[in-house]
Amino acid sequence: MAYRAPVSEMRHVLWEVLHAERLAETGRFQDATRDVIDAILDEAAKVMEGVVAPTRRIADLRPAVLENGVVRTPPEVAAAFRALAEGGWIGIAADPDHGGMGLPSTVLCCVNEMMSAANLSLALCPLLSQGQIEALEHHADERLQALYLPKLISGEWTGTMNLTEPQAGSDVGAVRTRAEPKGDGTYAISGQKIYITWGDHDVAENVCHLVLARLPDAAPGTKGISLFLVPKFIPDDGGAPGEANALRVVSLEHKMGLHGSPTCVMEYEGARGWMVGEPHRGMAAMFTMMNAARLGVGVQGLSQADAALQEALAYAQDRRQGRTPIQGVETIAGHADVRRMLLTMTALTATARAICLDCALSIDMAAATGDGAWGARTALLTPIAKAFGTDIGCEVSEMAMQVFGGMGFIEETGIAQFYRDVRVTPIYEGTNGIQAMDLVGRKLMDGGTAARALIEEMRATGVEMTGRFGGALSGAVDELAATTEWMLAAEINDRFAGAVPYLRAFALCLGGHYLQQSAGTGDGPRRQVAAFHLTRMLPEVHALCAQARCGAEQLEAWEIGA
Amino acid sequence: MAYRAPVSEMRHVLWEVLHAERLAETGRFQDATRDVIDAILDEAAKVMEGVVAPTRRIADLRPAVLENGVVRTPPEVAAAFRALAEGGWIGIAADPDHGGMGLPSTVLCCVNEMMSAANLSLALCPLLSQGQIEALEHHADERLQALYLPKLISGEWTGTMNLTEPQAGSDVGAVRTRAEPKGDGTYAISGQKIYITWGDHDVAENVCHLVLARLPDAAPGTKGISLFLVPKFIPDDGGAPGEANALRVVSLEHKMGLHGSPTCVMEYEGARGWMVGEPHRGMAAMFTMMNAARLGVGVQGLSQADAALQEALAYAQDRRQGRTPIQGVETIAGHADVRRMLLTMTALTATARAICLDCALSIDMAAATGDGAWGARTALLTPIAKAFGTDIGCEVSEMAMQVFGGMGFIEETGIAQFYRDVRVTPIYEGTNGIQAMDLVGRKLMDGGTAARALIEEMRATGVEMTGRFGGALSGAVDELAATTEWMLAAEINDRFAGAVPYLRAFALCLGGHYLQQSAGTGDGPRRQVAAFHLTRMLPEVHALCAQARCGAEQLEAWEIGA
Repeated sequence: MAYRAPVSEMRHVLWEVLHAERLAETGRFQDATRDVIDAILDEAAKVMEGVVAPTRRIADLRPAVLENGVVRTPPEVAAAFRALAEGGWIGIAADPDHGGMGLPSTVLCCVNEMMSAANLSLALCPLLSQGQIEALEHHADERLQALYLPKLISGEWTGTMNLTEPQAGSDVGAVRTRAEPKGDGTYAISGQKIYITWGDHDVAENVCHLVLARLPDAAPGTKGISLFLVPKFIPDDGGAPGEANALRVVSLEHKMGLHGSPTCVMEYEGARGWMVGEPHRGMAAMFTMMNAARLGVGVQGLSQADAALQEALAYAQDRRQGRTPIQGVETIAGHADVRRMLLTMTALTATARAICLDCALSIDMAAATGDGAWGARTALLTPIAKAFGTDIGCEVSEMAMQVFGGMGFIEETGIAQFYRDVRVTPIYEGTNGIQAMDLVGRKLMDGGTAARALIEEMRATGVEMTGRFGGALSGAVDELAATTEWMLAAEINDRFAGAVPYLRAFALCLGGHYLQQSAGTGDGPRRQVAAFHLTRMLPEVHALCAQARCGAEQLEAWEIGA
Repeated sequence: MAYRAPVSEMRHVLWEVLHAERLAETGRFQDATRDVIDAILDEAAKVMEGVVAPTRRIADLRPAVLENGVVRTPPEVAAAFRALAEGGWIGIAADPDHGGMGLPSTVLCCVNEMMSAANLSLALCPLLSQGQIEALEHHADERLQALYLPKLISGEWTGTMNLTEPQAGSDVGAVRTRAEPKGDGTYAISGQKIYITWGDHDVAENVCHLVLARLPDAAPGTKGISLFLVPKFIPDDGGAPGEANALRVVSLEHKMGLHGSPTCVMEYEGARGWMVGEPHRGMAAMFTMMNAARLGVGVQGLSQADAALQEALAYAQDRRQGRTPIQGVETIAGHADVRRMLLTMTALTATARAICLDCALSIDMAAATGDGAWGARTALLTPIAKAFGTDIGCEVSEMAMQVFGGMGFIEETGIAQFYRDVRVTPIYEGTNGIQAMDLVGRKLMDGGTAARALIEEMRATGVEMTGRFGGALSGAVDELAATTEWMLAAEINDRFAGAVPYLRAFALCLGGHYLQQSAGTGDGPRRQVAAFHLTRMLPEVHALCAQARCGAEQLEAWEIGA
């Protein structure tokens, strides 16, 4: 079936759950009124459904290829990229001074969900440009900004991130790529980078690499890393791509999914680069970008969940197998276990969307108001959005395949592609284990203030509710609160040992809270989904919290491989 | 890394946990002594490690192709099949009167785990022959047995199962393929069958199809289905493959995994077939085979879990990223969250192996003693073995990919292949939802006798244990027992609504029981794995049981798609 952008669901979350009208009440986002945002979502839906989605399977079947040192993509995919660029969708959150639309992250989050659902492998290209735009806006000097931002925002050029090296994955501090000052304000960059998404292609006229590298006098570890902008073609004074830089694509990876996205091994051979930000402060600049990117990857996971759920709902309401106990439902959607799967998928997807949009709204409110509490909320929600969004992206795709049965395992139905594509999202941009460690480590370093504030919000929702649903939410939130206090009192490695179940428990409690807000006082399908979540999913919080409090001793004592 | 057959672990389960010495105390399996079984496992390990495992990736990269109506496989894969056939591994459990070795299912289960781990897509070919051998042993007349069994057992010919049609998947009763009596004792079979694994190939000289079809006077539904043996080449009187039968391969499916196994759409165009068993009793005959096949598919899931776990353990003990808190462990195996994943994978895999071997031992003891209690135990354990074995096959492969990080998403490391290959196992041979419905439906129709007997075994293990581990097991088993009583008192659709979490809870309790038995009084790694399971995994039982008891009302009330 054709992808249908979930605009009405997004609006419901924005206006009924998160009260995003608050955005237009700030000076910074005064133009982002409800009407404006609603209209933008409709426009985005049109291009994502009509232009981008039809290229999803093409991108899977005809991966980009490396020919004579240049990466070539199918013309249909390149055309979809041009449509995104020309529609202004790459720069919707970028600074209007350089051609962006200055819209809030909240809108970006919705648009990027649709773009990712429509064709994730293609979406990665504009998504990486967006990350680079944000990094340059915050850290580059005016000359670099003036030269690069308009081109990146218009999509004439695209951006990449170059962090990983064979020995430096999760341990970014192990980066060895070197940057030698050339004496003219530029640097000669040398080294190999791997997993460079859209590291080369023919969909735009220049590729701009942000590269982590070490100056000659750099300290070991993350404190000796600087950030450089290294274009494929060096812009001339008029800003036209000129001389080819000393860099090349060594090879493309053969991946399980995201075939349409060329993943490059890049070799820098004394390539000319320009420093972005301060010497040895590259990680700080990178973190600006990575925080937004983490939310963005959570949205990628969410997008695959929603698209796979749409397919499963349609299939289950069409396929007939056996008699069902529900009068008038003759398809497999009448079987209790199929309904259980579909409701689980619905509840998880709705939870992830609310978490991601709450995180995005917090980013905007922090930027617009300067209020530290919004910043702390953003910081706390970011690892949850990334890890939960991508975990449920995998789980929902997995259940969609189960709903399809044997047909799901056949590539032509397209479910297998969701399953293959989404699987890297819990890995890249910081594995979900690292996200969870960030949550129980850095994000609790405020003494628990931000976590407690969010827990109190959830608790208030539980208190407002009557009957067993309210009890289920309150009980789960109490368990989460107790576990949070346990974490705050525990040694760091004991926290790490329970980090993944703790993050999951936090997300499920948030789900109970948001879904209850979403259902309001109504009794339609939203109430039914909320009731399902409160009854069926919240019991897991207790198990997860028990696991979260187990500590590291048992893990460390294990004689692995003995 | 190269696959290492887990022979020492299998032996430990057989002799220390399940006391499989009991086999040789029966008349039927008196030759299956500990020495004999140990020696057979060693021999099997040699051929699976040395001959079969090297073809796993070849089979993935060079799928079988359909050329001029004939399926062609890579010569390396065909050679590995010949080695399995010539080593006698196809017929190790078959009747010695027809050339088999008459070994117990318990041994078959171990050998098939190794064979499936070594190359699952290839293993499916002998596995299907084994299923056909069993069906013919039980239901075919002597002439058919004499003609076909020696050829199938020797691997000169292979067998397939033809159940599914486009409109008849989980609902086998919807089969439309027709069988017209020709008046000479044979039948003309006409219709289309899909998902026919190894439906054609060039690794053996004949392909024998077991086909479900309807006689002209058949009743609707499953009561009107008969079973027919339809060879590709009709054997002449001397048993040599002669005239080509009126059947053909229409096409091969493009699957997400198991590329090495040709999945055929078969067209029967008045093909000559011989009836197996009684008219209209085809489902009964098919069920004989399907019960064994369900355990077999559980073992397939287990095999992928074990092989993926081996890879993850090796990688985690080699890859260095960041400093770890454990003195002397400088690889990622020192990080708490990586250890959590590896221990989870270890505990789940060990649980699945014990369940599968207990099920196999029950099959053997039932056959050898005729004791109905063993039969009931087999019946109860079969859906658990199938669903849990395949679910954890997916989960462990998934976690293995997470341990590998970005490298796991790259096809060359081989982890992605496990992830892709194993995913169909929770679907075929009855989806895991159907297994769970079988457990809470048909398998509780004895009034709960078999379930209570197994629960009492687990309870006794808990009682024997001191301290909090014993309490954890007893608490989980009590919850399972209460949920079992709830199921017995509930309407069928309420049972179905909680079937999947109930099956999972049952399996996790069994895991606590087996792992405790496995650890015994020692305090080495087996004790550590058991302690991990009891502390970390058993809390889930309480959440699962709560979900199991939710009933169908909430699910049925959902206004899907509204």
